[in-house]
Amino acid sequence: MAVENLAPRPLADASAVIDDLMAATGEGMEAVNRLILSRSDSPVDMVPEVANHLIDAGGKRLRPMLTLAASALFGRPGGNEIRFAAAVEFMHNATLLHDDVVDESDMRRGRPAARTIWGNQASVLVGDFLLGQAFLMMVESRDIDALGVLSRAAAIIAEGEVFQLAKAGDLSTTPDDYEKIIHAKTATLFEAATEVGAMAGGADSASRKALAAYGRELGMAFQLVDDVLDYGGAQGALGKNTGDDLREGKMTLPVILALQAGTEGERKTIERALGNPASGESQLADILAIFARYDCLSQTMAKAERHAEAARAALAKIPPSLERDILFSVPEFCTSRAY
Amino acid sequence: MAVENLAPRPLADASAVIDDLMAATGEGMEAVNRLILSRSDSPVDMVPEVANHLIDAGGKRLRPMLTLAASALFGRPGGNEIRFAAAVEFMHNATLLHDDVVDESDMRRGRPAARTIWGNQASVLVGDFLLGQAFLMMVESRDIDALGVLSRAAAIIAEGEVFQLAKAGDLSTTPDDYEKIIHAKTATLFEAATEVGAMAGGADSASRKALAAYGRELGMAFQLVDDVLDYGGAQGALGKNTGDDLREGKMTLPVILALQAGTEGERKTIERALGNPASGESQLADILAIFARYDCLSQTMAKAERHAEAARAALAKIPPSLERDILFSVPEFCTSRAY
Repeated sequence: MAVENLAPRPLADASAVIDDLMAATGEGMEAVNRLILSRSDSPVDMVPEVANHLIDAGGKRLRPMLTLAASALFGRPGGNEIRFAAAVEFMHNATLLHDDVVDESDMRRGRPAARTIWGNQASVLVGDFLLGQAFLMMVESRDIDALGVLSRAAAIIAEGEVFQLAKAGDLSTTPDDYEKIIHAKTATLFEAATEVGAMAGGADSASRKALAAYGRELGMAFQLVDDVLDYGGAQGALGKNTGDDLREGKMTLPVILALQAGTEGERKTIERALGNPASGESQLADILAIFARYDCLSQTMAKAERHAEAARAALAKIPPSLERDILFSVPEFCTSRAY
Repeated sequence: MAVENLAPRPLADASAVIDDLMAATGEGMEAVNRLILSRSDSPVDMVPEVANHLIDAGGKRLRPMLTLAASALFGRPGGNEIRFAAAVEFMHNATLLHDDVVDESDMRRGRPAARTIWGNQASVLVGDFLLGQAFLMMVESRDIDALGVLSRAAAIIAEGEVFQLAKAGDLSTTPDDYEKIIHAKTATLFEAATEVGAMAGGADSASRKALAAYGRELGMAFQLVDDVLDYGGAQGALGKNTGDDLREGKMTLPVILALQAGTEGERKTIERALGNPASGESQLADILAIFARYDCLSQTMAKAERHAEAARAALAKIPPSLERDILFSVPEFCTSRAY
């Protein structure tokens, strides 16, 4: 879908895209942040303590910014975009709290995970609280269709996480299984974020679908890149944040491709390292050598690039605007993180 | 509120109340059970495995029956009562799955808890899935006000559970703290169950409030009785299901009353046993002796009886019907479990 004004603009500095997105959504994000703060409060001290430990740690708040930018495309945001953006971020944070329990993670966003300070129990329950608050904010919007988008997303995300859990360490996991997992656990929330944004902005049905497709494709690219970053990026390099997926036995695309292409001996090497909490730099270096031999990381990046392209293409019929241009650049920002 | 036709009818056989309730809601419950079965299904095998392990174990399905009975009072059930009842039961099951992780329980409804078979991870994630499906069923009802009742309930329940967690083993917990905890974690879902039932039946605002109050008071009585049963019932007797709350350090009303009334030595005895996984029959017998000395179990039962009476009183202005008579007897069934 070659549309002249949609040729990728050169990203001299990829991080500038996020600065642009922050600038374009700044006013709305202040309202979103106020809403997040007020809705994570509770007379039960442990609730805001746990919630704010995670929320204060920041993260880019990419999803709520996407919701606001999507709503701005259609010129009729009526206030619901603030609630939707906060609800999307709450759903994301609830998922992170539960994921930390599921993955037995010690760190999150560069801080000790909440569960290491307040225990698994608090992480489970405060996650539930945030999910309840997310739905309550959606109810306050009185938009039952947007509620449908988010509640469907909540069920699909959980289902995808269970599928990922069931497939952990399963050497017969296929690229198709992997695609289903990342579609459910990651792309679904990006899709919901941009779709409800479009709905809050008053998009017609075709534009709503376009924004849903944009979010979904961006989410796919985002997760593929994340899985490559867990092996040190497109070049495959050892670093302090590498190898977690390997140790947790997560069947991400690079590993699946390596198992398909490798020799019996290479499969054995991967098998020994996968899901082994003791896998360290030496095991990781062996795996990276196998990845390099069969282009597993670059094949994964190529797939990410295709999804990024599809995300851009989804914007083809959206009228030009500052927000459209920024959203157009986000997929490239996303893939550029891996290089 | 003495209304002649609301004098408690003698309960020759308390369990007959549940039989009556099952008979009165039988047809609707078949539809609810079909919906529960279809909505706990998933192409991800582990989802129905975990969900059905819990669901098949039964439990009385008291909450969805209350939803159906409440809707029948107003004569205009239009189908939404089936969705609401199934959603309430899904919320309850999601809570149980998460509670087992929080309490590190080994048993649930007489079976090994799901977490002991599939792990904490699956219990957390399948709980999340059931919660998402509950909201999706509510969305399909298109009743945004009923959705508000259930999403508010979800947040309050989680908040109450966090409060209970924060207070575990805290000797300064007051009867007022306890009341807040059981109101949030138990009474709120009973209240939501009967309130959304009334809404599905087309109740006016006053009747909706009456049914909400009925559910709330019944839920308070239910939890007080449950907490007495954990110490062997109103007579305080050792048995195979006694002492879990003690070992988990749960600050239930009998313990709070004993700490308030007891001597320094008795406080010490309670303190040593509370939250100690090794507390066995001997420790429990010591605690029961303290309870007997200060009427802690009978005071707790007296409180349960007051809530049961308030539940009955809430039905005062509801026109007589088979369902009204059954609902009128449920509080007495509930308290009779402890004698």
